[in-house]
Amino acid sequence: MSNSDIDIARAAKPLAIKKIGENLDIPWEVLSPFGHSKAKINLDFINSLQDKPNGKLILVTAISPTPAGEGKTTTTVGLGDALNYIGKKAAICLREPSLGPCFGMKGGAAGGGYAQVIPMEDINLHFTGDFHAITSAHNLLAALIDNHIHWGNELHIDARRVTWKRVMDMNDRALRNIVSSLGGAANGYPREDGFDITVASEVMAILCLATSLEDLRKRLGNIIIGVNRQKQPVRARDLQADGAMAALLKDALQPNLVQTLENNPAFIHGGPFANIAHGCNSVMATKTALKLADYVVTEAGFGADLGAEKFFDIKCRKAKLSPAAAVIVATVRALKMNGGIAFTEVGQENVEAVKKGCANLARHIRNVKSFGVPVVVGINRFNTDTDAELAAIRESAAAYGVEAIVCTHWSDGGKGAEQLAHKVVALAESGASQFAPLYDDSLSLWQKVRTIATQLYGADDIIADKKVRAEFARFEEEGFGHLPVCIAKTQYSFSTDPQLRGAPSGHMVGIRELRLAAGAEFVVVICGDIMTMPGLPRLPAANQIGINAQGQIEGLF
Amino acid sequence: MSNSDIDIARAAKPLAIKKIGENLDIPWEVLSPFGHSKAKINLDFINSLQDKPNGKLILVTAISPTPAGEGKTTTTVGLGDALNYIGKKAAICLREPSLGPCFGMKGGAAGGGYAQVIPMEDINLHFTGDFHAITSAHNLLAALIDNHIHWGNELHIDARRVTWKRVMDMNDRALRNIVSSLGGAANGYPREDGFDITVASEVMAILCLATSLEDLRKRLGNIIIGVNRQKQPVRARDLQADGAMAALLKDALQPNLVQTLENNPAFIHGGPFANIAHGCNSVMATKTALKLADYVVTEAGFGADLGAEKFFDIKCRKAKLSPAAAVIVATVRALKMNGGIAFTEVGQENVEAVKKGCANLARHIRNVKSFGVPVVVGINRFNTDTDAELAAIRESAAAYGVEAIVCTHWSDGGKGAEQLAHKVVALAESGASQFAPLYDDSLSLWQKVRTIATQLYGADDIIADKKVRAEFARFEEEGFGHLPVCIAKTQYSFSTDPQLRGAPSGHMVGIRELRLAAGAEFVVVICGDIMTMPGLPRLPAANQIGINAQGQIEGLF
Repeated sequence: MSNSDIDIARAAKPLAIKKIGENLDIPWEVLSPFGHSKAKINLDFINSLQDKPNGKLILVTAISPTPAGEGKTTTTVGLGDALNYIGKKAAICLREPSLGPCFGMKGGAAGGGYAQVIPMEDINLHFTGDFHAITSAHNLLAALIDNHIHWGNELHIDARRVTWKRVMDMNDRALRNIVSSLGGAANGYPREDGFDITVASEVMAILCLATSLEDLRKRLGNIIIGVNRQKQPVRARDLQADGAMAALLKDALQPNLVQTLENNPAFIHGGPFANIAHGCNSVMATKTALKLADYVVTEAGFGADLGAEKFFDIKCRKAKLSPAAAVIVATVRALKMNGGIAFTEVGQENVEAVKKGCANLARHIRNVKSFGVPVVVGINRFNTDTDAELAAIRESAAAYGVEAIVCTHWSDGGKGAEQLAHKVVALAESGASQFAPLYDDSLSLWQKVRTIATQLYGADDIIADKKVRAEFARFEEEGFGHLPVCIAKTQYSFSTDPQLRGAPSGHMVGIRELRLAAGAEFVVVICGDIMTMPGLPRLPAANQIGINAQGQIEGLF
Repeated sequence: MSNSDIDIARAAKPLAIKKIGENLDIPWEVLSPFGHSKAKINLDFINSLQDKPNGKLILVTAISPTPAGEGKTTTTVGLGDALNYIGKKAAICLREPSLGPCFGMKGGAAGGGYAQVIPMEDINLHFTGDFHAITSAHNLLAALIDNHIHWGNELHIDARRVTWKRVMDMNDRALRNIVSSLGGAANGYPREDGFDITVASEVMAILCLATSLEDLRKRLGNIIIGVNRQKQPVRARDLQADGAMAALLKDALQPNLVQTLENNPAFIHGGPFANIAHGCNSVMATKTALKLADYVVTEAGFGADLGAEKFFDIKCRKAKLSPAAAVIVATVRALKMNGGIAFTEVGQENVEAVKKGCANLARHIRNVKSFGVPVVVGINRFNTDTDAELAAIRESAAAYGVEAIVCTHWSDGGKGAEQLAHKVVALAESGASQFAPLYDDSLSLWQKVRTIATQLYGADDIIADKKVRAEFARFEEEGFGHLPVCIAKTQYSFSTDPQLRGAPSGHMVGIRELRLAAGAEFVVVICGDIMTMPGLPRLPAANQIGINAQGQIEGLF
């Protein structure tokens, strides 16, 4: 295991993307190649698949994340390869990584070890340009807002209440809060403004939930950018921005096709935040994959409390998807941290801590089952794991009637997850899934949040001050009460306190703010400090990135 | 001629880009396709061509621009097609259009009528992502600067004197002047900042002048972002930004290959501003085209006073290119405006105004000849032109020993410029070109500017206040005196007054400011108000852009 991810990726023997397409019965003419190992898939072709039966959809989710790492993407890739290894026609669906974090702390996000998607450098940098298109479309709308105000403000936009910020795919704290339009009359009316990172853009969420170009344009038009002087919402449509935004996003809406190290098909498309957005890859990609493969393995952001909940309650509800099974990824190390152990000590055997941390796993198992989806636990094995620790997880899962299977895809590729694949097939073929979202559309927004908090987070109740309660009331009055809610809270705890690992209960979930994503069609419920523009660390990863004498990119992990 | 540019472009029968490559002896493996009608060309393949002889380089430049339009790009495309039509192996080299202006006033920039490059919508929107890559690389450096200051400012960067702004490929006046890093300690130290449009980025100029990945990285490292508290320059290299920036630009450095409506090869790569930068397509593209074709037709921005001068004195000097001939594009309409007629009256016959306006043409002819390059005038014909007006241009050109040839490529494609093509071949084959830049490297910066102003602009002298003169002295002292100068002045006049059309002389050229582009390796000499971030007009073109029922983009002209 002394090889780095990038060495392994470079040693891979990728097939031409044309061949990957052929393996899924995608004709070359409907693929738009980007180099010889990436392609976009034509929307007309996708439409032509409508009457084909769907494959089985498998969700990969995880326990509450810790600095020890869980390996959700790695497991998604490993399971996809394993399903192909045991003779199934399987594809995976992942989110596109954001450029910003690559230059900060995190490095790339394309799996790891022998469970990666390639071409790794491309996927981590510009890929097929989707995020750049989203950035452009988002900022075009921003420019049109200030331009409208500058030229006379016919719509009477209240410049103090413009909620549409600008975006950049960069970790840049200096842009979080700015004053714009300074420098005199030619530059417009100065106002407070700011930038979010592109993955936090509502345009990203819209692209990932849109089901056609027409639906995309409709949703873009529905975006609310702020209010007028009568406090009525002003939409992107009122600024005639939707057409040009859709034109900018026309190609970005096409799903991207790449491959795993084992030459199996991977759809990597869209990447909304998993806090202020729904955190899954695009509906277009998932639906396309389901028409072309018998098994589609996909992941959702963060732990199951955030990622799986939104996958089920937002994506599956809206796109009418019905998952056949779910894998909850756990590691011995992360369970120890959930059991109260510090990061520096996760490498030492501690069966008690594992057992204690399994309370977190148990809660996630219970939660995922509550959506009617059968569950298996995938243990992403590390070198330091001991047999006793692994046994503790198996026992803990068994207590909930769930099997926990040790996987070694990181070091062994698809065959390392063979057993997991067999179990997933068994669950999916059993027809045991009786998927239903957690709450009905007809429930009030407040009750929707309360249902999630009490039934999934173990909270006693939710609380909010008068101002926030008034927001709830206003959204109901304005006709947005039927929308699903998208909860933005810390990913590290079932509570709103990131320090509270394990499976806390009896807490109160405080709601700070509501934000309407009228185009994406959900109401964001903010419970805690949510960072929508990260900063770079003291020693940014960017400092180590370069190009070697062979013209290859170095330092991108 | 009732067909719009977009209708004509859509009716075209494009060849697969693979076939366009084959016609230039480029193997499929070294092309990175972007869809089926665009591709990038592998740098290793380009290196392998080094020992091949060069084709002949033809510059297309123009008289001083007016709102009547000249058609430089159209003529470049038409001439390229015409050379192929008469049996030569010819390619064209153009700049990539900027996304920002597409949504403002201007619409697209891919030629017009039957002299266009395709796929027109792609070229005008994201194309192969080069501008997005430049935006990212530029803004990564900006983020690293503020991040460095935030974390302790080890380099003692003077935050008041950071000259590296941020960029966006958008017309957005609200971003011209901002205050950044507001909102408390977590967001850094507030300072005055701003955005330029991406084409104004020094990274754009660097990409267009770089001769290899290594040279690119070196130049990126040389960028000066401001000074430290001791007023010493701080470079991108000091912030360890050059490696990551080069990684972001690795693919963008590869020239793009597309085709004309007549299926002839077109290299469209890079697009620096023609005022604060040198305004030509990339050295990589031009050099590659010269290895693969017998004739390479390229254009330079604005009129010959700015575009051709910089093409000769910056690009050809640095890249050791030797143009074989130049075409100066003129129109009857634009010459009338240079002769003092208002835009509203250019459609009416006025032989006297044409004759008067020919003073502008004559000055440009003299200027281009002063570089030792043989000249022909291409008259881009409009329907309203009369025989007497065309004759007036021919006579005027003949007085300078130059032929003026009427071209109808806009309505007839390549065969409409057949006569021009024959003349260009005759000039190029004659071996008459004795190209040399206007001034020696060894001349002082002040004398370089003075040479251009007096010999090309017809000025009596140049002037600058004490502060600016001190800047000249400082750059000489710091060792930048050997660099070429890049003059930023209005494109509408030989003087610095945009209202002064025709061929003014005896004026003084006032220098307001110097800016050092240490990575691009030229000194920008600012003479007048230069807009580096445009705004949108009252009725932006964006309002009309959309997608029709066939999924095609509408409203992009």
